[in-house]
Amino acid sequence: MTLVELPALVDTDAAALLSATTDRSGWPGAAPPRGVVRARDVGDVRDVLAWANATGTSVIARGGGSGLAGAAAGVDGAVVLDLSGLDRILAIDPDEQLARVEPGVITADLDAAAAAHGLMYAPDPGSVSISTIGGNIATNAGGLRGAKYGVTRDHVLALDVVLADGTQVHVGRDTIKGVTGYDLVGLFTGSEGTLGVIVGATVRLLPRPARTATLSAYFSDIETAAHAVSAITRSGARPAVLEIVDGQTLGAIDAVEGTDLRVRGEAFLLVQTDGFGAEEELAVIAAALAPFAALVETATDAAASDRLLFARRRALPALEAIGRPLIEDVAVPRSRLAEAVRRIRAIAEEENVRIFVFGHAGDGNLHPIIVTESEPAGAPIPAAAQRAADRIFALALELGGTITAEHGVGRLKREWAARELGADVHALQTRIRDLFDPRGILNPGSSL
Amino acid sequence: MTLVELPALVDTDAAALLSATTDRSGWPGAAPPRGVVRARDVGDVRDVLAWANATGTSVIARGGGSGLAGAAAGVDGAVVLDLSGLDRILAIDPDEQLARVEPGVITADLDAAAAAHGLMYAPDPGSVSISTIGGNIATNAGGLRGAKYGVTRDHVLALDVVLADGTQVHVGRDTIKGVTGYDLVGLFTGSEGTLGVIVGATVRLLPRPARTATLSAYFSDIETAAHAVSAITRSGARPAVLEIVDGQTLGAIDAVEGTDLRVRGEAFLLVQTDGFGAEEELAVIAAALAPFAALVETATDAAASDRLLFARRRALPALEAIGRPLIEDVAVPRSRLAEAVRRIRAIAEEENVRIFVFGHAGDGNLHPIIVTESEPAGAPIPAAAQRAADRIFALALELGGTITAEHGVGRLKREWAARELGADVHALQTRIRDLFDPRGILNPGSSL
Repeated sequence: MTLVELPALVDTDAAALLSATTDRSGWPGAAPPRGVVRARDVGDVRDVLAWANATGTSVIARGGGSGLAGAAAGVDGAVVLDLSGLDRILAIDPDEQLARVEPGVITADLDAAAAAHGLMYAPDPGSVSISTIGGNIATNAGGLRGAKYGVTRDHVLALDVVLADGTQVHVGRDTIKGVTGYDLVGLFTGSEGTLGVIVGATVRLLPRPARTATLSAYFSDIETAAHAVSAITRSGARPAVLEIVDGQTLGAIDAVEGTDLRVRGEAFLLVQTDGFGAEEELAVIAAALAPFAALVETATDAAASDRLLFARRRALPALEAIGRPLIEDVAVPRSRLAEAVRRIRAIAEEENVRIFVFGHAGDGNLHPIIVTESEPAGAPIPAAAQRAADRIFALALELGGTITAEHGVGRLKREWAARELGADVHALQTRIRDLFDPRGILNPGSSL
Repeated sequence: MTLVELPALVDTDAAALLSATTDRSGWPGAAPPRGVVRARDVGDVRDVLAWANATGTSVIARGGGSGLAGAAAGVDGAVVLDLSGLDRILAIDPDEQLARVEPGVITADLDAAAAAHGLMYAPDPGSVSISTIGGNIATNAGGLRGAKYGVTRDHVLALDVVLADGTQVHVGRDTIKGVTGYDLVGLFTGSEGTLGVIVGATVRLLPRPARTATLSAYFSDIETAAHAVSAITRSGARPAVLEIVDGQTLGAIDAVEGTDLRVRGEAFLLVQTDGFGAEEELAVIAAALAPFAALVETATDAAASDRLLFARRRALPALEAIGRPLIEDVAVPRSRLAEAVRRIRAIAEEENVRIFVFGHAGDGNLHPIIVTESEPAGAPIPAAAQRAADRIFALALELGGTITAEHGVGRLKREWAARELGADVHALQTRIRDLFDPRGILNPGSSL
């Protein structure tokens, strides 16, 4: 089969090729791919991979294009395999509390469908309204509720995967537990399209919490907020959401939205508890952070909660409005949060770049956002911004952390991934990749 | 290096060899191994594996010997590598909510050490007082709290592993989240000593729940109890523990303990909720099961909870007292629980064997226990019992379930594991095994 034999599928329109060269990562992109194939069904995926394997053509699987590491960005010579058309929710089973989905389902759509049965799909990456389940699985996406509910991996039971040679396998199972064989579901989850193409998934659903309670707090500086995070950790409570936003980011939101958040403090924490004891659990947290906070507000109804969430939800859009954000995604041990933020600030000063910090404090996961001037799309990352990013990666590793907590390695962080893993483990991982993809057609140049 | 060069380590005493040939699975054992090496430190593990790889000697890693699938049972020609002496808790970090442990730490000891900091190690297999963390990780052990807290895999962050050739690697990380590289922690977890030998682990700890509330209920028959389980699932509550015990098992407990449990009903459910809303959540569950139950008792203090837990806790010991139990471990979709139990009973009648059923209803995980007469240790499994076991495996697969939810494949279920996985996935898994262990020295004859 040649690309010419798949005329209904292949899009070689210049605009389509250009839009497939980037994602939301700030990666400047490369020469456009040779074509975009919009899969209509799983058979198309099998056909494309069998053909690509036979011809040695690179294949880059792509969902919503909302990736933050360049893993789904098309490159010269490759075929981008667009799975966004495989977007059916095949089943929601309230007795089993699971859903069967195609990979192109938008994450928020699945959660909404679950909500109709009193259930939720717990992982909620910031891109939930535009990202696909397949992309979430391919990157092992995290999200705000990760503090209590974990990441995508914790909610995937089974996968249908088309391997590099076009054969299709089903791994995992539809029961909650099961230990027959190695954990291939875990292996494919987070593999960024390098081990196979995900064409179906069975995911867990959980009861929607009976109640939620929300608190926002402002602090005189970010170190004090970080101490409050430690106090919450020690309080015995398990917040569902525990987010941090620094003063610079509050200032950016004020500039864009006309608000006055930054006068309230130089750091902001958002805490949400859920379940039958949500209010009491929030009260425990409020007591724990009271000695540190300058201002605390709580809410138990949806409208008031939404007001408290505002500062967290508008953080990235505000930064996108003032420049071109390069989004980092380090994690550090939670007790090193204050040190991490202090040293990121020093890097910003020394490199003379703007770095804004917010993130999932409950997981030690910070998103330092390096905002440069708004160059035209495709412009390379300015040297100072790249130096600052490299220094942030080095800092995360020095503090015992990771260069990427939830966004992935992609094309942006390959060199640093090898450093984090170390030579022995990197070699072992590469051998696994080679086992699954001996011809090296799956997303070459990305990830490992 | 030869075994003779490690005199301080090698035990070839006949009693030691014999005790290493079995575990708690009922597997009858084979000819004794050639020696038991009691590792004193990680260097010993590296030395033994390097030597075994060079000489083509089989190595069977073993912890507490409490396995339920024969995976750690020594066989002719192999060296059993006993890790129970590597039993130090290296660190409990309440700020990070994690622990660093050697593999021989007894699971209950870790939980107790965590409790001193207001924390818990959530996975609680039935063998918690005799099993080791290393064994729990090697089998991806489950437990009673799995209904809410998941299995061992969900609580392991990083592993130190000695590979087949004696090299040591560190996989995973000490942060809660992280997506650099493939999920090798998941791959090693549940691999039953076939990919490497676990010599260290970083595990998550969680806040010990502020409160727990417990309920026991008796039902006229097990189908009615299964319907109650479905009602609980649909209630919006998330029990931490949801266990089922059938009437035959209640009768066995009565016979051994002198109690009168079975007059209360032909099926028993145990439900525990925890957290700040434990009592309210339990009330929601009590309301959901009320239409089905013949008798309900609740408790919120520890002593009363312990009384309610009695019937579940004494189930296996009672069966061990009346004969020789062959412990099965299937899981089925939760909505098929009633059908599964009904058909297991039919199998018992048709094969004329005694089968007792209890298990983790919240996960659809049933432990049908086939109790035969108490033959001498090492006697083969009677033909009728083996036929009944095979039919139970087939039933689990027919109902869309798995042959092993939490005990593992080991030497008992290899043939059935291949059937469950199917030829393609089994071949893929075997290639992964070969990649990690090209000479085939790690636990040959077990698992895949």
